[in-house]
Amino acid sequence: MTRPLVRASVRAIEGYVPGEQPAPGSRFVKLNTNENPYPPSPRVMEAIRAMPPHALQRYPPPRADAFRAAAARVLGVGEDFILAGNGSDDILTIATRTFLASGDVLAFPEPTYSLYPVLARLQDARVAAVPWEADWSLPVAALLGTDARAIYLANPNAPSGTAVPASAVEALARAFDGLLLVDEAYVDFADADCLRLAVRLPNVVISRTLSKAYALAGLRFGFAVANPDIVREMSKVKDSYNCDAVSITAAAAAIEDQDYAREMWTRIRAERARLTSALEALGWRVSPSQANFVLATAPGGRAAQIYAALKARGILVRYFDVPGLRDKLRITVGTSEDTGALLEALALVATPGPEAAS
Amino acid sequence: MTRPLVRASVRAIEGYVPGEQPAPGSRFVKLNTNENPYPPSPRVMEAIRAMPPHALQRYPPPRADAFRAAAARVLGVGEDFILAGNGSDDILTIATRTFLASGDVLAFPEPTYSLYPVLARLQDARVAAVPWEADWSLPVAALLGTDARAIYLANPNAPSGTAVPASAVEALARAFDGLLLVDEAYVDFADADCLRLAVRLPNVVISRTLSKAYALAGLRFGFAVANPDIVREMSKVKDSYNCDAVSITAAAAAIEDQDYAREMWTRIRAERARLTSALEALGWRVSPSQANFVLATAPGGRAAQIYAALKARGILVRYFDVPGLRDKLRITVGTSEDTGALLEALALVATPGPEAAS
Repeated sequence: MTRPLVRASVRAIEGYVPGEQPAPGSRFVKLNTNENPYPPSPRVMEAIRAMPPHALQRYPPPRADAFRAAAARVLGVGEDFILAGNGSDDILTIATRTFLASGDVLAFPEPTYSLYPVLARLQDARVAAVPWEADWSLPVAALLGTDARAIYLANPNAPSGTAVPASAVEALARAFDGLLLVDEAYVDFADADCLRLAVRLPNVVISRTLSKAYALAGLRFGFAVANPDIVREMSKVKDSYNCDAVSITAAAAAIEDQDYAREMWTRIRAERARLTSALEALGWRVSPSQANFVLATAPGGRAAQIYAALKARGILVRYFDVPGLRDKLRITVGTSEDTGALLEALALVATPGPEAAS
Repeated sequence: MTRPLVRASVRAIEGYVPGEQPAPGSRFVKLNTNENPYPPSPRVMEAIRAMPPHALQRYPPPRADAFRAAAARVLGVGEDFILAGNGSDDILTIATRTFLASGDVLAFPEPTYSLYPVLARLQDARVAAVPWEADWSLPVAALLGTDARAIYLANPNAPSGTAVPASAVEALARAFDGLLLVDEAYVDFADADCLRLAVRLPNVVISRTLSKAYALAGLRFGFAVANPDIVREMSKVKDSYNCDAVSITAAAAAIEDQDYAREMWTRIRAERARLTSALEALGWRVSPSQANFVLATAPGGRAAQIYAALKARGILVRYFDVPGLRDKLRITVGTSEDTGALLEALALVATPGPEAAS
């Protein structure tokens, strides 16, 4: 072999390290990957169990028609504004391959979802990571100063949980001559969204997922909302049958059951308020969250130590060993019982027992 | 907008035109997209119906562990030789993004699966389409003469249904300093396969799908077999959670039920022989097929006319309006009833009734 088989950009990136997923049946309180603590709508399992075998035998509708029709009704947009994907990661991959050529610049405020730079590098695009303003407000001028062809904005942002107002996003989109993708993976837990921007402006793509808000992380279903011209171009890049028959049926059932979904979101928002207050009472600083998780700065900055101590007590939260985040933990909002278990464990961790000395 | 939002390579390609999929409930005999005429193993529906809601709530195992374990047992390879994908189109997309940089050459014998040049163009790679030898044997020297970084070989080939021997594939792989992907989408209907080449040679990737051989086109599940070093590099390119929890469970159940699958393959091979003989008796020339379809040259070359006449009678077959194929139809092997309906309709088409004159 004189030449490497694998292209240089792929060889250069790190392999994917799956998040901590405890073995099925183990008794962890899992607050590390922002899954929904409630089960999906009962209608989802009903729809799946009612599927006839021939639905699996034939190719699925390539544009996920049943889901597009349901989502169009719920969101109040035309069906041709919707592109379905195999999770919102699929939407992000499709977008990167549609809008960024080799050498182009992808800009985003950072810290944010760590997939963005990986997708850019796979596309041989360059990355312009622009620090958030100190109060997590949008660095508009700095983003516009990057010569980017595309800007990806997670709103609410991960891992901060903070959101920027639609007016700021609109100002950025109007001043930008490239593509602005607003990643609204967590938006159903927020007070506002940017959906109408995708209808009004030709250069805005909204990305959403059913993973968190509809408790369907295992199903892999996301979608984009954008002008039909943009949807048409992105459709050329997607795999022909990127969504399977089961997930189309299940996702349509989920998004149609808005009553069930809204009840979950209300509970999670209430629990988020309770978790935030309780952490603050224990001396943590908590960023104002619009998502189903909080980013909390540990008392004395002892985040790594507390992360490990919680894990030893069967509670998984997320620790990022990167600059700017080493004094913080990202904690998913779970059920009241999950919060109770977390707070109980934190009390023990803050007052080390005899085993700490051994 | 001074610059186009969409990159030039994407703008330049044609939009995807979904294949003819008659509306659910319509009474077409569907012999146009190589789906399996039998339902999937009953164990597949049982496994899906037994899934608990929390399997959808949590992220799925990123490497589809249950499927890899099952496939490794069935195929007699190590689990780390297997990469699961959202259909074999996902595997082909991942391969193209792993092995081809901008400007690199992808070679393939043609005619073949029309996705290959689309994937190359999306990657800004160049295409070297090398004509098959007149008897559909492998044009080894011509392929090696292309300066390709990767060669994609559908074996059995579509739309010809013909297969080349593993010895010829091995000779090509050994003489080639790039990556040889052998697309075995139809291999379970063939007399032989190239699986062991992926174990023995570092530059061979085998791609397979559950769409045809396991009657699961609607499920979107495919996989690659290759050396662990190659699997590791391809894993960097795939979406983190490219296979969902339902399809992993269903695909594992399907591949584990080898008795059911082999019974289907035996029936389809027998029906292929019957269809071939019957067509030849009607004056068609049929390429020797190792797949679940036949490529047949119409008497007098009247393929387009016969395609339309069959469609008018409720029978869908595949017509390719491209050079070298305009006198041929590709006909999926269905049930005995499907073959009966086709032959009956062909008799009517060959002897035009009064309506032909109206």
